[in-house]
Amino acid sequence: MAQVYFKTKPDGRAVFDYYYRSNPFNGGYVIFAGLENVLDILENLKFVDSDLEFLEQHGFEQEFLDYLKDFRFHGTIRSSQEGDVVFPNRPILQVEANIIEAQVIETMLLNLLNFQSLIATKANRIRHSAKDATLLDMGLRRAHATGGYYASRAAVIGGFDGTSNVKAAEDFNITASGTMAHSFIQSYGDELQAFRDFAKVRPKNCVLLIDTYNTLRSGLQNAITVAKEMEQEGEQLMGVRLDSGDLAYLAKQTRKILDDANLGYVKIVASNQLDEFVIKSLKDQGAPIDIYGVGTNLVTGKPDAALGGVYKLSEFNDDPRIKLSENIIKVSLPYKKQVYRMLDKAGMFYGADAVAMFTEDTIEQMEHPFDATKHMSLKGFEYEALLQEVMTDGKRISMSRTVTEIAAYSKSRLEKLPEEYKRFQNPHIYKIGLTPQLKKERDILVLKHKF
Amino acid sequence: MAQVYFKTKPDGRAVFDYYYRSNPFNGGYVIFAGLENVLDILENLKFVDSDLEFLEQHGFEQEFLDYLKDFRFHGTIRSSQEGDVVFPNRPILQVEANIIEAQVIETMLLNLLNFQSLIATKANRIRHSAKDATLLDMGLRRAHATGGYYASRAAVIGGFDGTSNVKAAEDFNITASGTMAHSFIQSYGDELQAFRDFAKVRPKNCVLLIDTYNTLRSGLQNAITVAKEMEQEGEQLMGVRLDSGDLAYLAKQTRKILDDANLGYVKIVASNQLDEFVIKSLKDQGAPIDIYGVGTNLVTGKPDAALGGVYKLSEFNDDPRIKLSENIIKVSLPYKKQVYRMLDKAGMFYGADAVAMFTEDTIEQMEHPFDATKHMSLKGFEYEALLQEVMTDGKRISMSRTVTEIAAYSKSRLEKLPEEYKRFQNPHIYKIGLTPQLKKERDILVLKHKF
Repeated sequence: MAQVYFKTKPDGRAVFDYYYRSNPFNGGYVIFAGLENVLDILENLKFVDSDLEFLEQHGFEQEFLDYLKDFRFHGTIRSSQEGDVVFPNRPILQVEANIIEAQVIETMLLNLLNFQSLIATKANRIRHSAKDATLLDMGLRRAHATGGYYASRAAVIGGFDGTSNVKAAEDFNITASGTMAHSFIQSYGDELQAFRDFAKVRPKNCVLLIDTYNTLRSGLQNAITVAKEMEQEGEQLMGVRLDSGDLAYLAKQTRKILDDANLGYVKIVASNQLDEFVIKSLKDQGAPIDIYGVGTNLVTGKPDAALGGVYKLSEFNDDPRIKLSENIIKVSLPYKKQVYRMLDKAGMFYGADAVAMFTEDTIEQMEHPFDATKHMSLKGFEYEALLQEVMTDGKRISMSRTVTEIAAYSKSRLEKLPEEYKRFQNPHIYKIGLTPQLKKERDILVLKHKF
Repeated sequence: MAQVYFKTKPDGRAVFDYYYRSNPFNGGYVIFAGLENVLDILENLKFVDSDLEFLEQHGFEQEFLDYLKDFRFHGTIRSSQEGDVVFPNRPILQVEANIIEAQVIETMLLNLLNFQSLIATKANRIRHSAKDATLLDMGLRRAHATGGYYASRAAVIGGFDGTSNVKAAEDFNITASGTMAHSFIQSYGDELQAFRDFAKVRPKNCVLLIDTYNTLRSGLQNAITVAKEMEQEGEQLMGVRLDSGDLAYLAKQTRKILDDANLGYVKIVASNQLDEFVIKSLKDQGAPIDIYGVGTNLVTGKPDAALGGVYKLSEFNDDPRIKLSENIIKVSLPYKKQVYRMLDKAGMFYGADAVAMFTEDTIEQMEHPFDATKHMSLKGFEYEALLQEVMTDGKRISMSRTVTEIAAYSKSRLEKLPEEYKRFQNPHIYKIGLTPQLKKERDILVLKHKF
């Protein structure tokens, strides 16, 4: 496609929208994540010699390869803030650029935004269940190869406290955290000696895994022995970890036995196929778990495993563009647009984002995208313009934000979202409407291309 | 853990087994993939200065950091061949190494083998449905960030013909293949002109996407016009792509209209949320589709999204090691082991792999791992030893194999697996047994650690 554009319309200007069509996990929202990585890549994107040689072998023309040799992204990006709460069928990010540049970046942009938004959303659902408990990402061994690196980043944006992925912790400046494996205890055969050696070498943040042979009769007893020995050395055992069996039952028994041994400060860590539903059940049962280690279900975004975000052309050389579909929800929105979020008098999200043409300056009403009988007056609402320019002509126009800052922003945004949108069963549907002008212009284009 | 080993048993020798406990997708087998990548990494693994600085900031001791500075993997790997058909609860790969080295590589090894084996298996199920049709991976925009790179590799091992992931194609020497996006046609507004320009610039392997406005009334008609124009230039249109609507109906109509226009050579490409079940249904309906483009469901391994492979210590300093569990299937197998595959007289897989102690030299019977009433005589069977040494003291002992070679090997192995193990509904269960000696030794260890 890029070579055809190069030969036929090298100066074409395009506007593309990034958006998705339905919320993952049957949930009520998505946490938008991945933007900073996309901007970093866009600022540095280029074709290296080996890429160009490969393309030459595949029949691309020399003139086009010369163009790629000097390729840089010079476009403008308007976007929701990373960490914001977003909803289906409204632009989340908008690319305005030369059409070749806008096309070349498509797959990278979809790949990073779709995946990180999926995982940040999953992480946030787990955070919702876990309330104030500590949440650790332990998923790298089941993650999708190197994609696990970005899963750990997205997990923190969604509300996790740390990760066992040391490389991600290093690069994204997030908390590294891990515990021991069963093999450590097995290598000793003698569980007590294994615990003693571990506590001696790493007394700080020491968490002992107690289910290798028998949780209550062996692991916990040996952990208590070591905790008492640590006290003699002026140290405190941080926690014991349960990794199998009935976690609710074992956590309650463990808490009681630890408390009876005057070890009320020793925390209980639980892991083993956890997700938002298991953690909610453990909470509902009153399981006294302080720290949850979540792996596979977090980093793979099970069961959805993908967010179906798309990248659709909405304007070309200042003319609107549309894609039709037999499925009405898949008809794209033409024109360069802005999205406005309505706020109630307390500053909370009212539950309505209005999609407008970029040129509109007063937002007074929104209409249902397809149902002609539904509309809502927006008079008197305060609102925010959600798509903010973050890159102009290929250069960032703001400082990059750290993962910690993004996570804090995300938390502050979620606090403005009423609870009924966050529940797992049949969450309230956040309304996305079109201004009357945008809807009218879209319908004109639909009719123009209709057969 | 590594630092504790370094301080307390720096010369410990460990044997670890890589295996998984149940087949993904309710299927009958797994295609083992990722080995070559693991071996490449093991030959080059080291800690760089920034890693060591990060670890130093996290309280690791100087003596241990000095050890890591010179860290190299010096272990021995015995493994099933990459691309082989493998089954649950038997060692697929075995690491014999210094315990620090064996521990440091755990997550990398699990991450790459679990993910690629999952995707190769999914790809192979899709290949099973698609029979001789061409299969293209188009999943990168929904893949788990950079993990998509390995998904494309694993897809080819499982039986796919090519990928839209150009970087993976370049690095793994696999076929790159893509088509146009809706945005290409939208950018013109005029579909016919879009097709004309594309065909003019890229006449070879030209596939036109025909569903942007209306598949049969617009896209197909314009594609036929362009195909006829290409014939005047001595070129042939390769195909038309259907990406929405009822693919069975549209493919049949498209085939008929193309044939009536004397364009029998124009292929039909289909995409849109395909998986092994949709493709099987399309085949069952007689849809004349030549090429399938498969995306999200392939590269995310939906619905499972993960293969639960584990890495368990089975021997330490020549002593057997075991992990118990309240769930009997999660009890690990002690001792360094070998796995033997039984062959029938025609050289086909008989449906039984026997796990033996490494030191056993005659394999005459196998027993069910847990059910004392079940055993099978193996007298008179031909068999293969499946775990072959591929790395000795940190060095590969064989040339690396290309993805194409691995895919061909995988195909040859699958041809030896009887059909009943390949079906999607309740596949025949391939038997995994233990030799009487291994079973006896395991049971002794279970009793020793029992509470």
